[in-house]
Amino acid sequence: MGMFGPDSGSVVSMSADHGAQRPDHGARRAALRDLLVENGVDALLVTDLVNIRYLTGFTGSNAALLVYAWDTPEARTVICTDGRYITQVGEQVPDLRAEIARASARRIVELAGEWQTGRVGFESHVVTVDQHRGFVEQATGLELVAVPGLVEQLRMVKDQYEVDRLRAACAAADAALAALLERGGIRPGRTERQVARELEWLMFEHGGQAVAFETIVAAGANSAVPHHRPTDAVLAAGDFVKLDFGAVVDGYHSDMTRTLVLGEPDEWQREVYDLVRESQRAGRKALKPGVGCAEVDAAARGVIEAAGYGELFVHGLGHGVGLQIHEAPGLAKTGTGTLLGGVAVTVEPGVYFPGRGGVRIEDTLVVREGGPELLTLTGKDLTVVD
Amino acid sequence: MGMFGPDSGSVVSMSADHGAQRPDHGARRAALRDLLVENGVDALLVTDLVNIRYLTGFTGSNAALLVYAWDTPEARTVICTDGRYITQVGEQVPDLRAEIARASARRIVELAGEWQTGRVGFESHVVTVDQHRGFVEQATGLELVAVPGLVEQLRMVKDQYEVDRLRAACAAADAALAALLERGGIRPGRTERQVARELEWLMFEHGGQAVAFETIVAAGANSAVPHHRPTDAVLAAGDFVKLDFGAVVDGYHSDMTRTLVLGEPDEWQREVYDLVRESQRAGRKALKPGVGCAEVDAAARGVIEAAGYGELFVHGLGHGVGLQIHEAPGLAKTGTGTLLGGVAVTVEPGVYFPGRGGVRIEDTLVVREGGPELLTLTGKDLTVVD
Repeated sequence: MGMFGPDSGSVVSMSADHGAQRPDHGARRAALRDLLVENGVDALLVTDLVNIRYLTGFTGSNAALLVYAWDTPEARTVICTDGRYITQVGEQVPDLRAEIARASARRIVELAGEWQTGRVGFESHVVTVDQHRGFVEQATGLELVAVPGLVEQLRMVKDQYEVDRLRAACAAADAALAALLERGGIRPGRTERQVARELEWLMFEHGGQAVAFETIVAAGANSAVPHHRPTDAVLAAGDFVKLDFGAVVDGYHSDMTRTLVLGEPDEWQREVYDLVRESQRAGRKALKPGVGCAEVDAAARGVIEAAGYGELFVHGLGHGVGLQIHEAPGLAKTGTGTLLGGVAVTVEPGVYFPGRGGVRIEDTLVVREGGPELLTLTGKDLTVVD
Repeated sequence: MGMFGPDSGSVVSMSADHGAQRPDHGARRAALRDLLVENGVDALLVTDLVNIRYLTGFTGSNAALLVYAWDTPEARTVICTDGRYITQVGEQVPDLRAEIARASARRIVELAGEWQTGRVGFESHVVTVDQHRGFVEQATGLELVAVPGLVEQLRMVKDQYEVDRLRAACAAADAALAALLERGGIRPGRTERQVARELEWLMFEHGGQAVAFETIVAAGANSAVPHHRPTDAVLAAGDFVKLDFGAVVDGYHSDMTRTLVLGEPDEWQREVYDLVRESQRAGRKALKPGVGCAEVDAAARGVIEAAGYGELFVHGLGHGVGLQIHEAPGLAKTGTGTLLGGVAVTVEPGVYFPGRGGVRIEDTLVVREGGPELLTLTGKDLTVVD
């Protein structure tokens, strides 16, 4: 048994090399309290595991958390988990009271009722219709109020602890790619799967604690499929090879894409590569505090549209990264909201010619006044593998 | 970019060695139709990606599916996905009409409204409160009916295609452990992380296409933590080493646990091991069509309780496996329902002494008349590593 829950890294922090030692969970809960007051609720029932980790440091696979808006010091804010995690919750969350119950969310609703909490917000973007019905049946005397995405809003702006870990995760991915190229790991005759497995192994060798997602290695015509998963297809001379991969450090996910060519590129390959590179540069340059998410997408997309290939850029420009591989904000035509300093995003335009090949170039960056902080340090010149 | 969606393995089936070549998705949809009629709905809106994969073969990370109860031949049953997957949906789901829209579930609700579908079931165990509100706003002229878990009910009973793949996934895990032991990979001085990474690498070498979950390697006192994640803790002579790991083949997940000892076991270690082994045997023997899930748990738990250690068996006995690592049914004290022939489950009792060590032994099996089919073939004698 075991689950892909929030990546724990380890119960004992192994992050001595990455700057700040522990997140300030108390400060994060204080920031959430401000949002609870703004949103007119007396407490928030947090049931999303990633959000619980963000707010408390707990990494078990079952938990529920009740954060009181008016709770200073934190006498009633409580976390509930089940018997498998008695030891773990004591070690990871020493600063909050803990309840042990198998049905953790139900126990929390029960407690909120006992304490006559009043207006209890819940995460309507993650709570299912069945769960909600269960809460309503149990929530005597409480008013349940849908307040989606409050913790995700806080998570968008990364503190120093988080930026340090994103940087380390990006460094593991950079180092792995460099090592793979150094040892001739990308070459005709190998399969996509072999390259993917070796790249993942190297991420672990270079400080990654987990892979951020299933590594994409797409060669030749497969590089035209935006989310192609590795197969036993064999790399061949002349192919574009698109590698999209990331590492996890202390729960933080990096994400990068580089597209290489096996041998001297054809004219069309060089043109497509240069176009995507120019688009990606425009996207990066557009990242500033106060800029709209849709505006950043448009800055990059406009370059590709001006060249007449807008219809081949079949996805959004990028996405937030952090404790999840995809999180707020989205950089897309339909993106809402504006960027703030400290927001971590990817910039990853692509152009794909079905049946022929495609190029995507992606970095992870942190939005800053005066220009974004680039965390993916691998160069973006077209790498020709001989 | 890239997501942990349903594991695809590959767009082109690589399963030539595993018996049946393709699942019969049409037959699965026909079985679902029977359930829709029983549940009094005219159609089911399927939004869970694993369920969509089960019913159609589609493995993209965004989709929605509408299955009509009265649709033979399947003229109106329709799958919707977005522009990233135009090619993929055509290749994977050639037998259904496909719509392309970014907001796939909303498009399906829109179509159901246009066709005046009547009573449309939705998966209330996965649809969020916010999603449901969006459906209700859009669903003019439709009645939305909560029908949770119908597809999960079908998925419980594995067909030949599925059993073949579970067997192959279990074989990859078995072979990886054997190879790891053969090469002396589990020994004092190595870290839990090093052992976990090598075990995962070996699963890939022996036919695994992905890991089923983050491999658990827990040595010494860490073996007493049921879901300890690997750390840089160093294996030491005298330690229990608990390894819980699995592989994925064509989307199907195996799950096994073996607990070894580094050097001759102490008396208490041998006693705990023998107790858990006896409990696990009792659990396996209780697996029969028609037996209650709670009854199977009790058969195994009773052995441990009789020895006075019931309070140290701090989790359920097991869980279904298939396209997900945890699926219906649950084998636990609170388990409801009865087993059927063809249901695939784990049997994994454990006894844990906090601060000292613990033992868990786990197999994956398929329930059959006359006794379950054991898919995890690694022996269960206490392995002493010198």
